Order: sequence, then structure tokens, then C-alpha cells
Amino acid sequence: MTSDFYQPVDAGLIPRFAGPATFMRLPLLTSAKGLDIALVGIPWDGGTTNRAGARHGPRELRNQSSLMRKVHHVSKIEPFKLANIADVGDITVNPIDLMLALKQMEDGIANILDAGALPLIGGGDHLTTLPVLRAVAKSRPVGLIHFDAHSDTNDSYFDGQRFTHGTPFRRAIEEGLLDPKRMVQIGIRGSLYSADEHDWAKEQGIRIIYMEEFTRRGPEDVMAEARAIAGDGATYVSFDIDSIDPSMAPGTGTPEIGGFLTREAQAMVRLLEGVNIVGADVVEVAPPFDVGGMTAIAGATMMFELLCVMAKRVADSR
Amino acid sequence: MTSDFYQPVDAGLIPRFAGPATFMRLPLLTSAKGLDIALVGIPWDGGTTNRAGARHGPRELRNQSSLMRKVHHVSKIEPFKLANIADVGDITVNPIDLMLALKQMEDGIANILDAGALPLIGGGDHLTTLPVLRAVAKSRPVGLIHFDAHSDTNDSYFDGQRFTHGTPFRRAIEEGLLDPKRMVQIGIRGSLYSADEHDWAKEQGIRIIYMEEFTRRGPEDVMAEARAIAGDGATYVSFDIDSIDPSMAPGTGTPEIGGFLTREAQAMVRLLEGVNIVGADVVEVAPPFDVGGMTAIAGATMMFELLCVMAKRVADSR
Amino acid sequence: MTSDFYQPVDAGLIPRFAGPATFMRLPLLTSAKGLDIALVGIPWDGGTTNRAGARHGPRELRNQSSLMRKVHHVSKIEPFKLANIADVGDITVNPIDLMLALKQMEDGIANILDAGALPLIGGGDHLTTLPVLRAVAKSRPVGLIHFDAHSDTNDSYFDGQRFTHGTPFRRAIEEGLLDPKRMVQIGIRGSLYSADEHDWAKEQGIRIIYMEEFTRRGPEDVMAEARAIAGDGATYVSFDIDSIDPSMAPGTGTPEIGGFLTREAQAMVRLLEGVNIVGADVVEVAPPFDVGGMTAIAGATMMFELLCVMAKRVADSR
Amino acid sequence: MTSDFYQPVDAGLIPRFAGPATFMRLPLLTSAKGLDIALVGIPWDGGTTNRAGARHGPRELRNQSSLMRKVHHVSKIEPFKLANIADVGDITVNPIDLMLALKQMEDGIANILDAGALPLIGGGDHLTTLPVLRAVAKSRPVGLIHFDAHSDTNDSYFDGQRFTHGTPFRRAIEEGLLDPKRMVQIGIRGSLYSADEHDWAKEQGIRIIYMEEFTRRGPEDVMAEARAIAGDGATYVSFDIDSIDPSMAPGTGTPEIGGFLTREAQAMVRLLEGVNIVGADVVEVAPPFDVGGMTAIAGATMMFELLCVMAKRVADSR
Amino acid sequence: MTSDFYQPVDAGLIPRFAGPATFMRLPLLTSAKGLDIALVGIPWDGGTTNRAGARHGPRELRNQSSLMRKVHHVSKIEPFKLANIADVGDITVNPIDLMLALKQMEDGIANILDAGALPLIGGGDHLTTLPVLRAVAKSRPVGLIHFDAHSDTNDSYFDGQRFTHGTPFRRAIEEGLLDPKRMVQIGIRGSLYSADEHDWAKEQGIRIIYMEEFTRRGPEDVMAEARAIAGDGATYVSFDIDSIDPSMAPGTGTPEIGGFLTREAQAMVRLLEGVNIVGADVVEVAPPFDVGGMTAIAGATMMFELLCVMAKRVADSR
Amino acid sequence: MTSDFYQPVDAGLIPRFAGPATFMRLPLLTSAKGLDIALVGIPWDGGTTNRAGARHGPRELRNQSSLMRKVHHVSKIEPFKLANIADVGDITVNPIDLMLALKQMEDGIANILDAGALPLIGGGDHLTTLPVLRAVAKSRPVGLIHFDAHSDTNDSYFDGQRFTHGTPFRRAIEEGLLDPKRMVQIGIRGSLYSADEHDWAKEQGIRIIYMEEFTRRGPEDVMAEARAIAGDGATYVSFDIDSIDPSMAPGTGTPEIGGFLTREAQAMVRLLEGVNIVGADVVEVAPPFDVGGMTAIAGATMMFELLCVMAKRVADSR
Repeated sequence: MTSDFYQPVDAGLIPRFAGPATFMRLPLLTSAKGLDIALVGIPWDGGTTNRAGARHGPRELRNQSSLMRKVHHVSKIEPFKLANIADVGDITVNPIDLMLALKQMEDGIANILDAGALPLIGGGDHLTTLPVLRAVAKSRPVGLIHFDAHSDTNDSYFDGQRFTHGTPFRRAIEEGLLDPKRMVQIGIRGSLYSADEHDWAKEQGIRIIYMEEFTRRGPEDVMAEARAIAGDGATYVSFDIDSIDPSMAPGTGTPEIGGFLTREAQAMVRLLEGVNIVGADVVEVAPPFDVGGMTAIAGATMMFELLCVMAKRVADSR
Repeated sequence: MTSDFYQPVDAGLIPRFAGPATFMRLPLLTSAKGLDIALVGIPWDGGTTNRAGARHGPRELRNQSSLMRKVHHVSKIEPFKLANIADVGDITVNPIDLMLALKQMEDGIANILDAGALPLIGGGDHLTTLPVLRAVAKSRPVGLIHFDAHSDTNDSYFDGQRFTHGTPFRRAIEEGLLDPKRMVQIGIRGSLYSADEHDWAKEQGIRIIYMEEFTRRGPEDVMAEARAIAGDGATYVSFDIDSIDPSMAPGTGTPEIGGFLTREAQAMVRLLEGVNIVGADVVEVAPPFDVGGMTAIAGATMMFELLCVMAKRVADSR
Repeated sequence: MTSDFYQPVDAGLIPRFAGPATFMRLPLLTSAKGLDIALVGIPWDGGTTNRAGARHGPRELRNQSSLMRKVHHVSKIEPFKLANIADVGDITVNPIDLMLALKQMEDGIANILDAGALPLIGGGDHLTTLPVLRAVAKSRPVGLIHFDAHSDTNDSYFDGQRFTHGTPFRRAIEEGLLDPKRMVQIGIRGSLYSADEHDWAKEQGIRIIYMEEFTRRGPEDVMAEARAIAGDGATYVSFDIDSIDPSMAPGTGTPEIGGFLTREAQAMVRLLEGVNIVGADVVEVAPPFDVGGMTAIAGATMMFELLCVMAKRVADSR
Repeated sequence: MTSDFYQPVDAGLIPRFAGPATFMRLPLLTSAKGLDIALVGIPWDGGTTNRAGARHGPRELRNQSSLMRKVHHVSKIEPFKLANIADVGDITVNPIDLMLALKQMEDGIANILDAGALPLIGGGDHLTTLPVLRAVAKSRPVGLIHFDAHSDTNDSYFDGQRFTHGTPFRRAIEEGLLDPKRMVQIGIRGSLYSADEHDWAKEQGIRIIYMEEFTRRGPEDVMAEARAIAGDGATYVSFDIDSIDPSMAPGTGTPEIGGFLTREAQAMVRLLEGVNIVGADVVEVAPPFDVGGMTAIAGATMMFELLCVMAKRVADSR
Repeated sequence: MTSDFYQPVDAGLIPRFAGPATFMRLPLLTSAKGLDIALVGIPWDGGTTNRAGARHGPRELRNQSSLMRKVHHVSKIEPFKLANIADVGDITVNPIDLMLALKQMEDGIANILDAGALPLIGGGDHLTTLPVLRAVAKSRPVGLIHFDAHSDTNDSYFDGQRFTHGTPFRRAIEEGLLDPKRMVQIGIRGSLYSADEHDWAKEQGIRIIYMEEFTRRGPEDVMAEARAIAGDGATYVSFDIDSIDPSMAPGTGTPEIGGFLTREAQAMVRLLEGVNIVGADVVEVAPPFDVGGMTAIAGATMMFELLCVMAKRVADSR
Repeated sequence: MTSDFYQPVDAGLIPRFAGPATFMRLPLLTSAKGLDIALVGIPWDGGTTNRAGARHGPRELRNQSSLMRKVHHVSKIEPFKLANIADVGDITVNPIDLMLALKQMEDGIANILDAGALPLIGGGDHLTTLPVLRAVAKSRPVGLIHFDAHSDTNDSYFDGQRFTHGTPFRRAIEEGLLDPKRMVQIGIRGSLYSADEHDWAKEQGIRIIYMEEFTRRGPEDVMAEARAIAGDGATYVSFDIDSIDPSMAPGTGTPEIGGFLTREAQAMVRLLEGVNIVGADVVEVAPPFDVGGMTAIAGATMMFELLCVMAKRVADSR
């Protein structure tokens, strides 16, 4: 029953700038028990190859998420009526020991899943998605709808580093966490390390929709294909903020000009309605490189967009 | 006769960075007497529900308006040849006493109108439009073409505050200042407080063109409808800078991603040519949240765009 | 017993950037019951005469207070062992209706006092100190040790506004909340509105130690006098961040160059040890005007400095 | 043979933030001897009429060019395999004596050309293009494909200054360096000094494609025309960063809202493939006005885009 | 009679952020006729050898000077009662042609002097002081009290440039504008071009008080010597904002760490009381490099400090 | 012979903003062979417990070091005449694998030492000092003069991480690299993790001079003691930029208010003249958190100050 669900502080009653910041101004819980969707932070950027800072992402995403209200103006989805949602805080992650950190993240997400909730994650660099998938896809590979400027399927960096934010999806496929036939990457662009950089991904069956193809086809056409690729099975959604143009999301580690307009990104996420989302993240928000908080605002809004389609699915599946 | 009209300092002769900043580098007068159009500031943000700062708007709009020149590159309108235009300074407004401030704003605009000039206002938060309309629409309700991310037709905030920057157009309709049948709001978007938030506005007859509809139809089609709605009658134009995407206008109190590109906003204002504009404003420019002055540049340019269509109408009506 | 006291998250175990930000990384409670000292925010700047922004103060003070640890390196005070301390959130304050806001602040502080805790406040503009004193000094006038660039004892602004951040201490004396003979203001400087601006304050018996006198005498000598003025009676401490030099605390509404070095300010607050502090605040931190968070860091550290002397006094009085 | 060509530091081996910054992380040479394309900086802004700062352009372009990799993701061009490319440092230019500076720039570019290399320049204000053309077009007039918000064909500024960043192309035509029939300017917009400001340019035969025409037609159609105008002859490409929207490239001297999206600019430059480019520049990047380095990132990426089409042409012509 | 003197807008009546910005919120006049002291801007930085930006100084100094009030809190000087003071705008200066610019500045200051007013200048880079001295010292050499990190007595830069912001005082002495025996430079520091860099200055008789000597002796002792050096004769005061520590005044062209605290600078200027000041300037405020406006606030306050001692002298000499 | 030594680009001939940035505008070499002192960067911050960013330190230190000239204005030391000095680039360090990184740093410094040069390092976080000491102190323990806000002698963080920027000196003592009896730490301050946090250090014999003691005694007295502690033996100097007040050096990972003024820091380093320095570093400059480049300017100047005393010692020992 709706009246049992947690509700955000109402900005019509208490100003947005008031109170400690939690995701969407929801209560801060210590466990995901009883929740349908758990908003959770992963303050870690140990896999970053260039500009670190995503460790500060969760805090600023929470800060700017105070701008969110209760009802989606297009879909009319009211997530906090459809599902029980709260902020479960940040997963404690070691900033120095990479392998330990990966374990902590996996365990943290597993706890949420064990409690019966779906995780919606504010990252964190993109390597965080690997341990998340280890938890989410423990029992079977999942599909992936992936918005990003980069394929993140490289094999290694720096003479053999296999765990970086440029390699998570290669590792996840190797570990059987992802079904590459049910994977689509949208917005890929930017100069490449080598001419064959994306060959491995394509050989696995991943569908790469480059930015230029997106620009030509538009959100609706592209998402129709994406939904078809993901199908009805369990699907994870990973939204790298650097898929958005760096003028709209400058606070990120590896900016590539020529990206999505925010309104294009919003349109695409709205078209995830109906997809069987088993978890999602918004990653690579790096506040030290942000200007005017605009990246965190974009990231928090994308979390709200994801939350709406997830809450709708939760309610529809009940 | 043209030669009697005030002329801006010519950037081809004196660099833009030189001299105290007035709107468009025009002379600063103490009265609107003899003017066709009075550029006036309202440095006030007492109705702001979230991030204040629009009180600093007029000064920074003046500062960046030094970038404006004399001729519109598309319409070829030369506003300073078509109409007598000057900067009449800021209205003195009390920053502490809201009700007194509303009276001061109304009186300040009434003075300009009594002098025979049309006001083009650099705000200020959006509540400033209410007292402006009290002056402009004293004798009859006017139409409204309204660019904004928000409808600003809520009834109240914070347990009963009826005068905020989220409520001006509800109040204006209640007070008979606006003819809701001749009102159109363009660019509306962002999460809502409640599912019925826009119902009142629609029941009054206001046409709301959401951002998504605008994106589908484009500036020309939307403005054809807007001009038809406003008709031939006296019409006020209110341009909330937050209608523009926050990446292009970050310095504002309530940013909502997914907004207009500046070139779309420019295209729309240019299509106001011929509308019977009796006053206009650019509001919600909040310099403390701006980055690199880009919001103030956008706001100053939108003032120039508005000035061109207003001056053309003034000359055509002479 | 110490083991019952709330303890902050340990930065040696969980990185400072992790988790939602509360004051000093302490638990966030909904009531001050059982506390000795309640850390509380007042997100309000409705009394500001120039640059608003202190409404955002509590959130950024919380954010930067994550840098605080557990033991004072000079006094060796361990506040969280000496007293039960937690974050009780922000007082809900109306941003539009000034008189209502004053009442809400007074009630909010009264609640804390009624619960048996001393308030340590993160403001908010300096007018917030007036309602705080209405609660703190309800039963008898208190002394005041006041660090500030400005005396804040003007009678009114803007043709009769009696409640602004430039008038709280005049009002408080008029209302019998402060004993002017037990008042000292330290760091006063900056150009004056009129030659007699401080005459009223001096006539009441307030001791004004101008910045220049402070520079000559140094922290120890000045604080010896301040402690003598305050005596043994109940004393409130108000720390306006603009007392610190604007190069060290630029994020404030009315900067005046030539202020305290932070180390001088710290030295003075440390010398409050033993004073009978019944409440304290750090006000006028205005994040929109801050650069690099340095004002919020300074403000959060001053809160920690105040917390140490308050906790010591609490323990010594037990 | 490829193996003799200079190669950039590989970001997959050495992080992008490591090492002194050179263009594209290429070796820094003292001469262009043996090179096909020389990346060179012109740190000078003595022709600027409004906001100076482009003198700092080369250094920041180098800094952000560390983000570039080796292969173009759309065209698959691998510039460092197709041509021998290196950074030859900055031309030494006098910041005080304008006429001497023009001579130094001309000589510096002449040296590069004499060594047999094509110059790809990181400016510098737009007046730098004049001396560059004096060297590049010494033996015959060249065509020009020119991306800019401004025509830069004014006659003079400030009572007779004939050498400013608003006049280079007038001078170049007068000096017979450019064939105006083979000139196209794309993206022109912004208010004008006078109604006839562009008449001279049009009379010479320059094709001006205003921003509004570009928006209507799109990159492919516009570039088809541009390539036809330039024809097969020697053509210079000048990319003024202010052609891009100031939200995406705020760090520039004369921002005009309503500009290119970066992806539109990229699409156009890619369509230069096959044009007989004899030199190119990216000018007007003014780091002191940049925010978050985004202008320099855009500028460096446009240099990479230009480099790809230039290297392809070099290889194809070999 | 006092009542005839121009008065600034009173911040106790009209908020500081209101109205177009003039120096100290005084009226903006087109001539210095009738004034005792003329506040004037010189928006020019053509002599800058490193980071330009001081051309924007006058506008930002005006903007921040709105923080000034009417009475000096230490000396109790009320400048606007003692002297007739107004803002006479900016001198029109050509940004491209250095020699023409020097002439324009000289003429502009001569006009002020001819009108019977003393100039108090907001610069501009330090080369502006040379043409100012040509006007001020037309009839006889003057003394100089000079606050700066740099001696600015080099002979030339860049292979023979004799007119830069590093050479004005060498030129002024050569031209007989300054009496080197009545010159003192305070705050000099920073690495040198050559070991004999200051020899020429010392040989002329200039007294250089290095920063380290100042730190040892303090403001009072140093200024006693400075006043003795200047004596009773006509004296110019030049305040280079880079004399202040770059943490307190980062917005300048050639920052040198280890400078004055603002309170030390203020103390020194206050000790100019009684000196026969015939003109003064605050130079090298470069807003594009400023952070949080703090340099402009410091510069505007130093202008107010200078204004107080100048107005006192004017009144005492009447 | 002097004429064989590398010389920096002369800012009197070529402007500071010109050319790719190297340390002090010296030549960039690939080996330290033939050098007396090698300027070297360590772009790594993998030991950071809070705000990362020091990986970008070397590049920005190089950028701002262009402000340095050739002669020290107090000591008259001319480092580039006294010693052969150049920039040897950055050590290649793996950003992901901490233990590998430590090895790479040790080897990189060993190479410099093997070439016969002393290293002067631009870091990097403070953990970098540990591998540096492993190279520098390979044959015998060295003394340490250490400027810092923090003792950095903790045992571990985050449940057992022994290698962080809070632990290097504990590790170095345990490894026999430092002689704790010849160690002094100056400027220590800020709240502590536990009351006994510094006990271990003191038990080893390290002399800790807290900030408050420094403020009381001043640079000369403190440095007399420091020189006595270090004695004549081989001594390393480590300068953590966070020893300087965060208003003067905000761009750092763990700011603590109440620090050194830059002029105090400069005075202390100058008093290192004569100390047998075998290597030195400036660490914890974190550009993403810097404002206006002021931290990097301070850091680059401190490197110059250190270079002067090192070069003097080199020449005196020749």
C-alpha cells in the first residue's frame, strides 16, 4: 500500500537547500530491507586512468538530487507511489586496495539484492559496474543497455592492468556476467587507441551504436533497437555521464566532445519503460572537474529518469 | 527623427570593456520621458524558493550587454534607429519587505508607462513579473507569451506563501491581469510536485507546450501557434532564462536539464515580429551561480532579440 | 559513560568523502533528547542586505566538516568523549515570510534547549542570532562574545526595516536578551554608514575591539579582556565568518578586507575554554560566493573549535 | 615508411596526465625538417578588440590535447601512420609591438613551409591568420574555408586600426593572399556594427553561410557547397573556436550565442577529407575565460579532426 | 559647502547590488569641472608582458566599490564631506596602438588636472602610470610612493621594447617626471632577471624597501621613512595590487607569493595622511584571473583608503 | 664552467606564456647525466586517503614555474650559474597498481642518483616520498626536515593499508631510511584521529614543532633548531604544500586552516642554506582543487626556493 512507502521531503513545504542531502531527499536507511529500489552510492574511483574525482560523485549527486520532485512530467510516473524507495547510504569501499574494493562493492550490492531490492547506483567510476554485475548477475548472465562515449571493453592498460574503468565489460563478459548478444552500447565516440579497438566487442556480438549513427537516427529509432536487443530478460542499465556532451557534463574523467544533448539522453531513458531492469547506475560524475554543479544536476536527473522506469516496472510486475 | 534617438557607444570606436556598464551601452537616464522603450533593471529575488541570486541579474546583464552591436544580423532590424531607447536604471526595491517590494516594482513600471515608454526589463526573479503586469495590465488584461521550464502557476509554497516565483501567473490571472485564453507557455519541463500541478493552468485555458512537443515541432511551428494564441491584442512577453538548457544558462535558481538551445530560443523570439508587445522581461539570471558569464551573455542577447522586435513594432505603429 | 556517546565516523576507517554529509560525520537525529550539545543548521538568509547565499551554509558546512577528526591537537580536548553530541538536522524555516521565519527559528532552538542540549548552530545569516537569543535568553539576559567585521547594531535599513542581518544585536538589547555590559565585539572594521554608527552600541556599554586594536594586542591579550567582560555568567558566542579575512573566507555576504587570519581566530576561540557558553553559532557562510570550499572549511573548523570548548565546559560542569 | 614517423605517447601505457604537455603528446622538435605536418603554437593576442587571453591558447591546447589518441573513430584515419607529425613549439612573437609580431609570425610559418611541412596552428587570436597567409600564399592566392561567428572582414577599428582580429581577411584579400571566389565563411552570426557590414565581403565574392542557413541545411549539404567553392586548389582552413556555441567553448574573446554544436563542427571538418589543405589553424581559444578547460578540449579535438584530414591528404598525395 | 558635494548612493537605503556600478556609487560625470578629486578608469593593458586582463580592471573595481560606505572607521575621515568627488568615467584608450594609447591617457589626465581636480585612477596595467605622470608632472618632477612587488625600472623587454609595464619608472625618471631622490618602493620581491636588475634604480637614488625588510619593520616604521623621503613636495602614489599577497589578490598579471596582508597595506595607506598627494592609482587588477572578486574588492578598498587621505589633504589645504 | 650549464628561457626575451611548459623553462632531457640537480615530476596520487588530484601536480607546477626568473632577490643566489640543472620529465608511474608504482618511483629516482644528480621533485602525493627515500637513503639513513600540516607517521588506514600518504615516514623509519633523531616536522596542526596519534613519532625521537609553537617563535628561531637537528649529515627536505595555509594553497588533498603564510614558508626554506640536502620534494599540489592556480604558483616558487639553496650547496661542495 502506497501509504507505507517512504516519501521524499516535499520542496513545496521545505526548501530544497534545507537539510542534509540524501538521494532525492528520501530517508537514509541502514538496510535495504523492505525496499523495492535502493538508492546507493559507491564513492570510489580507483579504476580511473586519467582524471580521478568520481569518488566524490555520490555526495554531489545527493546534493543536486534535492532538485527532483515527485512526478515525471512526461510519463506521469510517480515513482514514490509505485515503489518503496530510500537512500541506503554509501557502500564502504577501500580507496587504496583495488581488489579489496571490488569485493566490498560486490558484497554491498549483494546485500541489497538479498534484501529484495533493486539497486540504483550513484557512482563511482565505471569499474564499479564490474563488481555490481558480479552481484546482480550471480545466477545468470544479464543483458546490458549501456550509454557511454567509450566501449570500455579494452583488455588492459599500463602493461597489464586488467581492472580499470576502461575494461569492465570485457571482464564481465569473460566472467559470464553479461550476455554479449543482449548488449548494446550507445553514444560511442572519440579517438581510438588502435584501429581494432572495438573488434573484440563486435566479435562477442555487442551492438555498438556510434554517436554519429545516433545523431542520424534519433532517440526513438535507436531505443527501439536497444529494447529489441535487450529483450525480455533481466537487463542492467549503465549510464556513463560522459555519454552526454562535456559542455553539459564537464565533470567527468574522460570527456569527449560531440555527445548527447541531455534532452536526447532523457528521451532514451524514458524509452526504457517496460524493460526488465534488474539494476542500474549513473557513473563517472567527477565533481572536482564539474562547473557550477551542472554535471551533478544532469546525473541526478538521469537517476530520477531511471528511477521512474524502474519503479513503473516494479509496480507492473507486482 | 532618427538623429534624435539615443545611440549606444560604438564598439568599433570604444572597446566593449571600457566605461561603466549600462544596458546595450546606452545613456543612463533618470526618467523614461521621451523614450519609446525603456531598458530597466529590477534587482530583486525575494520570491525565490531555492537559490537566490537574481538580485544581481541587472548588473551582470548590463555588463554582458556591452557585447551587443547595432543591427540584427537576420532581420536587419536596427533598433536604435527605429525607436528611442535608453537605460533608465534600476527600480529601487526593498530586499527585505516583500509586499513593499511588489508595490515599488509596480510603481516603477507605472512611471515608465506613464512617460509613454514600453518597459523591457532585466530581472530579477519571476515574481517580479506580477507587479509588472499590475502596471502593464492596469486597464485591461493582456496576453502572455511565456518561455520557461516551469509553468509558475502554483497556488502557494511553504504552507501558504502566495507570492513566490512559482506563483506569479496564478496571481495575475486571479487579479484579472492576464487573459488565460491568450496565454501560451513554451518549454515547460522537469519533475512535478504533483500529478495535477498543471491542471489549474489548463483549466483556465492556458496552452502549455512542453519541451518535448517543442523538440518535435521546432521553433517555426510552435511560434505560429503562439502568435495565433496571442492574437492582435496587447501581449506581454516573459522570458525565463531557465527555459534555456542549464548548460547554456547555468546561472539560475531552478535549473532543469533538457532545455532550449540558445539558437532555438533566438529563433522563437525573432518570430515575435509583429506581435503587439506592450512589455517584456528576461528573468531569473542569477550571477552567483553563473559560470564564465555565459548566462548573462545569453540573457543580454535575449534582451537584444526582444528589443529588435519591440522596436520594429514601435516604428511600424508610429 | 563515554561509551554511550555518539561517535563520528572514523576517517581512518571510512574515507571522508564517503556517505551523506552530517555535521562532523555524527549520526543524524530527529530530536536533541539525550544530547549535551546539538549541532543544528539554520538554512536561511532572509535578513541579508547585500549578497544572499547563507541559506546554503548548513549543507556546505556539513560537507566540509567531514574533514574534522576527534581530538583537538592543542588542547587535547576529545569532544565526543566529553559530551553526547549529534546532528539534529536543520530547523525548517520559511524562506519568504520573515516574521514567520523568526518564530520558527526561535521555536526550533527552544526545542533543543527544552531537550536539555546546548545548540551549536551552523547558519544562516546573522539575523538568525536574534531568534536564537530569544530562545537562549528567555529567562535572563546573557553575555555575548562576538567575532565579526561589523557591529550589527544598526537601527534599521531601507527606510525602516528593523529586522536585517545588520540589526540583530540592537534588537536583542532592546528586547532584554543581551546584557550590553557583558558584550564584546572583536574584529570590527570597514567603512561606516555614518560617523556615529557605533555610538549607540558604545552607549549601551558594548566593548568594541576594532581590528586594528586586535592586530596590535594579539589574541591572548584581547581574549583575556573578553573573558573578563563575559565573566562567569551565561554567555553566547557568535562567530561571523566575515570576521576572518575575505581571502580566507571569501564566501560571505559583506566581505571586508583586513580581517583575522584563521590561526588568530582559532587561537581566540581556544581561549574561550572555561567560559560558560550556553550556545554558539557560526554564521554568514555563503557558499555561492565561496571559492574552492575554503570558507566552508574555515567555518566547519571554527565549529569544531567551538565544540571543543563547549564540550569541555559541559564535562567540567557535570 | 611508417616506422620512421614520430608517434605520440600512448595513453594506454603512460597516463594522459603524465609528462610535460606537447601537442598530441608528440615529440617536441626545434625544426620542422622531415615533417609532413608541423603542429605549432602562436601565443599572441595583440589584435584582440575585446577580451584578450588567446596568448595562453597554445599552452592549454597542448595540455588538453593529451586526451587525443591515435585513430579517428569514424574515418578510421590514423594520422601518425599516414604522415610524419610533431610539435615544433611556439613561434616567438613580441607581445607589445604589433607590426614586429606580424613579421615574426610570417617568418615562423615560412620556416615550416621551407622545411617542407604543412602548418597546423594552435592560436592565438584571429589576426594571426594574416601573417600565416602571407607565408602560405606567398606564391599564389589560396582558397579559404572559414568557420567563425564573425566574418572578420571589417576595414578598421578604433579610428583607423587596420590590423585587428576583426580585419584579417579584408587585409588578406587586399594583399592578394586569398581568392575571394574560393572563400566560404560558415556559422556567421551575432549583431552587426552596421547594416552594410558584410557588403564588402559579398562584393568580393565571398560566400557567407549564416548560422541560420547552416541550421536549416545541416553539415553535409553545407560542406558539399564549401568543397565545391574551394575546388581543387590550395586551400587554407581557419577554425575560429567562437564558431562553436559559447556554452561549449566559453573561453573566447567575442562569444556569440547560438553557435555550432561540437558534433556539427566535427561533422563538417570530417567532410574536408580530400580538400587540398595547405595549412590550417584553430584560433581564439582564450583560457582565462574558459571554464573547466572545455574550450581547450574542444579546440584540441578540432585540431585532431583537422590533423586527420590533412594527414590523409598528405598520404594520398605522396 | 558640504551640501554641494556629490554624495554616493547610501547602501542603508538602496542595496549595494542595485543600479549600474560607478566608482563608490557616485554620480557619473562627463567632466571633472568643479571636482576636487576625480575617480577615473584607464581600461588598458597594452604594456603587459605576461597575463593581460587589467583592461577589465576599471569595470570590476567599480562593481566591487559598491561595498564602500561613507566614513573611514579608523581615521573617521568622511571623504565625501571633505571634498567634491565623482566618477568621470573611463579615458578612451586605443587597445591596439600603444603609442597612441599613451597619448590618449596623458591627455585624459591632463583634462582632469586642467579642470582643477586630482586624479584617483583605477587601472589598467602599470605602464598607464607613465602617461599619467607625464600629465601630473608636466611642470616639475614629483616624488613617488610606490607599493609593488616589482621595481618596474627595467630598461626594456623583448629585444628593445621600452614601453611595458616593467619599465614605466625608468622612463619617467629619464623624462624628468620623477625625482628619484624622493622615490620609495615598498614590498619589492620575487626572483630577478639578473643580479644587477635593481642597480640602476638604486644608483638614481630610489629607496627600495624589500618585502623582507617590511616584514621586519612593520607598517609604521616603514611609512615614517616613506613620508620622510617624499617630504612636503608634490607626490604621486602608485599602488600595484600585486604588492598584496596573491592569495588576497590573485587577479593580477605577475603574481609573486609572500606579499602584504591587506591589513598591512591598509595601515600603510592610512599613514599617507598629510602627504601632498597630487594623484594616485591602483593598477594591475586583472579580473579574468581573479577568484570570487577578491582582488577587485581589495583594489576598490585601497582606492577608498587613498581617497580618504587625499580628501583630507584637499580639505586641509583649502 | 658556467657557460656549459643549461639556462632557462629568459622571460625578458620570450614571454612567460610562450612555449610548452617545463620546470623553470629549462630544457627537457631524457636523462640526468651531467646534471647537478634534476627537476623531476612524479604524477601519482595513489596513496591519497581523501581528495585525489596530486597526479596532476607536476604538469601545473611546470606551467606556473614559468613565472620564475634567474636570481634570488634576497640571497642573490643564481642557481643556473651555480649548478647544471634541467627538467628530466616525469617518472612513469602506474596509476592503478600501488606496489608496482612504488617500485617505479624508487627506480626512477635511483636512475637520477646514479647519473650523479640530486633530485628535486614535484609531486605527487606524500606517499611518493617513501620510494624516493628508498633510493636516496639506500646506503645510509638520512635526516629529514619536513614542512607539513600532518605528521604522516600513522601506522595504517582503512583496516590495514600500510602504504598511504598518511604513513610514509613511519614506513621509512621502520625501513631504516630515516634517522628519527635527525628529523624535524614543522607546522603540524589540525584535529587528530586519537590522542596518542603522535606518540610513536615522538618516541622515535622526531621533533614535532606544532604550528602554534612556530607562530610564537618565528622562522629564524625554528630554523636554527631545525638546522641543528639535521646537523651536517645527508638530509632530505620534504615540503608538503598543505603546510601553507589553505587560503594560499587551497589545491591540496587534506587542507587544514591556520597554516604558514607563504612568506613564512619562504623565510624558512631560505634558512636551509648550508644544509647538506641530498634531495627534496614539493608534494600534495592537487590542481583540480586549486583556485586561480595559486597553489601551483606557491608550489613552483617553493621549488625555486629549494633549488636556490640546493644549487648553492652543490657549488660550495664542488
